[in-house]
Amino acid sequence: MAKNITPRKENYSQWYLDVISAGKLADYAPVKGCMVIRPSGFAIWEAMQARLDRMFKETGHVNAYFPLLIPKHFMEKEAEHVEGFSPECAVVTHGGGKELEEPLMIRPTSETVIGHMYSQWIQSYRDLPVLINQWCNVLRWEMRTRLFLRTSEFLWQEGHTAHETEEEAQEETMRMLEIYRRFQEEDLAIPVIPGLKTESEKFPGAIATYCIEAMMQDGKALQAGTSHNLGQNFAKAFDITFLDRKNEQSHAWTTSWGVSTRMIGGLIMTHGDDDGLIIPPRIAPVQVVIIPIFTNDSERAETKAFAESIAERLHSRLDRLKVVIDHRDDLRPAEKFFHWLQQGIPVRIEVGPRDVAKQCGMVARRDVREKESVELESITAHVCDLLEKIQENLFQRALEFREQNTRRAKNYEEFCEIMKKEGGFVMAHWNGSPEVEAKIKGDTKATIRCIPLDPDPVPGKCMVTGEPSEREVVFAVAY
Amino acid sequence: MAKNITPRKENYSQWYLDVISAGKLADYAPVKGCMVIRPSGFAIWEAMQARLDRMFKETGHVNAYFPLLIPKHFMEKEAEHVEGFSPECAVVTHGGGKELEEPLMIRPTSETVIGHMYSQWIQSYRDLPVLINQWCNVLRWEMRTRLFLRTSEFLWQEGHTAHETEEEAQEETMRMLEIYRRFQEEDLAIPVIPGLKTESEKFPGAIATYCIEAMMQDGKALQAGTSHNLGQNFAKAFDITFLDRKNEQSHAWTTSWGVSTRMIGGLIMTHGDDDGLIIPPRIAPVQVVIIPIFTNDSERAETKAFAESIAERLHSRLDRLKVVIDHRDDLRPAEKFFHWLQQGIPVRIEVGPRDVAKQCGMVARRDVREKESVELESITAHVCDLLEKIQENLFQRALEFREQNTRRAKNYEEFCEIMKKEGGFVMAHWNGSPEVEAKIKGDTKATIRCIPLDPDPVPGKCMVTGEPSEREVVFAVAY
Repeated sequence: MAKNITPRKENYSQWYLDVISAGKLADYAPVKGCMVIRPSGFAIWEAMQARLDRMFKETGHVNAYFPLLIPKHFMEKEAEHVEGFSPECAVVTHGGGKELEEPLMIRPTSETVIGHMYSQWIQSYRDLPVLINQWCNVLRWEMRTRLFLRTSEFLWQEGHTAHETEEEAQEETMRMLEIYRRFQEEDLAIPVIPGLKTESEKFPGAIATYCIEAMMQDGKALQAGTSHNLGQNFAKAFDITFLDRKNEQSHAWTTSWGVSTRMIGGLIMTHGDDDGLIIPPRIAPVQVVIIPIFTNDSERAETKAFAESIAERLHSRLDRLKVVIDHRDDLRPAEKFFHWLQQGIPVRIEVGPRDVAKQCGMVARRDVREKESVELESITAHVCDLLEKIQENLFQRALEFREQNTRRAKNYEEFCEIMKKEGGFVMAHWNGSPEVEAKIKGDTKATIRCIPLDPDPVPGKCMVTGEPSEREVVFAVAY
Repeated sequence: MAKNITPRKENYSQWYLDVISAGKLADYAPVKGCMVIRPSGFAIWEAMQARLDRMFKETGHVNAYFPLLIPKHFMEKEAEHVEGFSPECAVVTHGGGKELEEPLMIRPTSETVIGHMYSQWIQSYRDLPVLINQWCNVLRWEMRTRLFLRTSEFLWQEGHTAHETEEEAQEETMRMLEIYRRFQEEDLAIPVIPGLKTESEKFPGAIATYCIEAMMQDGKALQAGTSHNLGQNFAKAFDITFLDRKNEQSHAWTTSWGVSTRMIGGLIMTHGDDDGLIIPPRIAPVQVVIIPIFTNDSERAETKAFAESIAERLHSRLDRLKVVIDHRDDLRPAEKFFHWLQQGIPVRIEVGPRDVAKQCGMVARRDVREKESVELESITAHVCDLLEKIQENLFQRALEFREQNTRRAKNYEEFCEIMKKEGGFVMAHWNGSPEVEAKIKGDTKATIRCIPLDPDPVPGKCMVTGEPSEREVVFAVAY
């Protein structure tokens, strides 16, 4: 067991911070609530970006860049939006040595300034749809911060689209939710529940917010991505109108959707163990590390040469495995194992003089800590297969954990009991009112994470009021 | 001649703005001095990023992310630095609804906050070198702005490295300058002069600033990238110390280097013509556009199918040509030609019914406006070869232009005469003093762009004072 990491059972919050520190993933910045993403953490973000960016482009989206600073009066054009975001804004009051005539907000999100630009770019139905994404930093002032999960500044992508019809906007909203679901489950190996947010949890200014919710290893929920149908709210606030097919002026229908560096926090808390980070192979910046083991110069030469020959085989694959050889001479093998263990690299191959003699590599997997000797001839196929297995195992393990920690409550008393003793997700019926939702939160800290998109829901009765309920919703304490 | 673009000879500044507008590359944002980079412009930036990022990683650099906001007192730790940048800073005074105890600056560059982090990360010579780059936005308040060339907010990369010895820091400074030179000349087809900045033009806080300087089509100079040797200045200001090989505490030697979205401005002004943008093939987001030409449904079907078969051949190349078919049915061929012309796409292939009958495509190049009919069988080889030719031609054309507009001045009178009448670059001798440099700038607006890195310089006499001078320097009016 790693001495530099507090076990999860002892203190889950401290475990999380220790894993980040041991993996050199991020640090707090000198400005309160801001973070520095260190190279090991940023490489994970780059891998996430690369995959998502491809998925966005394959569905017809293009990237652009909108400004960091937003005039204060822009924020005020959409009533719910200003109410939701103004308290969280950082405000620039001086620039170039002078006080500004109008304060500028650092973007907490960009619906307003993008709405303003779209009103200039969109004239006719021929200009629609507009399907733009941007990768950028945003800032939302936070008092209680936690690296990756909740920091004042974070990195994200925000998609902003404008459509001719209500139906197209809804289709886009669901398309992007599905892309997020696929990315989380297929690439990050994190099972998620897609669903609709309640009125009190929806994005300020949206008519509907959809989300994907994941369960962390302490049973708490993490919102891992959101997709908003903004209806015509922002089109009306920013005058995004177009000449429609009937030659009449219409307001466009818009959407927005985003995921952020928070996903790195979700990755750590879903897969990590008491020895540190575990990165699923599909998103790992390094998938395989090869470690030559030697005690003298001649062994050094032969193990390194053999390591190179293994790396060459792995590189030759069409899908180009990401392989690194740890060539450092000033560390002992145990120190190197420990380093890569805490970096969460899925597969390690040890190569000592005896392995060279046998023309084998000792292949170890990070997720279940087994290792076996594999012959050079079959090592490429073996490692490729192993990476697939690890990816699948991480997903199944997380899915089983979620299933074991998802309960049903017969009545409100039982609900409160579960929330108090066990946590996790609780599926329960609710009458649809914000008052009951607030009461439950007050009593138990649990919120409705989402109303699942089950096409065939089972009706029942609200656990608090006994009123009829169309479907169960997911309750949990959330990050 | 394009009606939506002012000819260069008539008004070069207006031509530049018209090219940007016609190509839909960027817009001014609602906040004064900020810009919106539109999808067509951003695609160029993405291509630049992808290429540079690969070059950085091939030379051992990794990416990270440092915070946007910098405490005011950090900026004050390095005397020259604060003097240079404070007047340009945007200042955050309020956050989360409250006035802050200490104002925060939006980063104009990140030496200070990165220096602070490096002081925590670097303990021993074993931790060195640290070779980190970040891609981000920065903000420098500007009164007179010009899209891409000079805006308050811009996108860039900033590399920040720390080394054990002075020699290694100098090597890194020159390595990155050379990467910038190669990128400009080989990828952007922009000839540049690498050199050293004078004391008055160097980066605030650096001991030496190296740069690459390009000539625009109006004869003005554009600084296209800088690489700074920071000596131990920032290491001393931020206490970046390490236990060296002699077991003593030493200050690290640091460098920083950056290029920005300004390069897009340089690209436009180097290669564009009176019809708009021309993008060199190596950096073009779309290298080949295929345009089916038809007057009825059966022609529509056959030309589109033929266009697809050409695209398939081009795609099959190992180097994966970036090909787009313009499938729009609501535009006339002339409108499509015009659209892609102004997007600066290097090669256009027209496919009409007669081309289908002959199994040929009409291949047109953007740079010299020639077109020829090419048989399907040889079209892939032809287009690949043509893209190489266009890349080479753009570079040669720009190089010839620079050579034609680079002059030598026998004396100061002649120098002033050239600057007044012809502009361009003037190679002249200078005594090395800031006072003479300032006088020349006052008289002619020309500044010393750089002291070229000629290993075998020809000595002479300062054109103003007659004092001895080791080498000629490059004078020009700059953007």
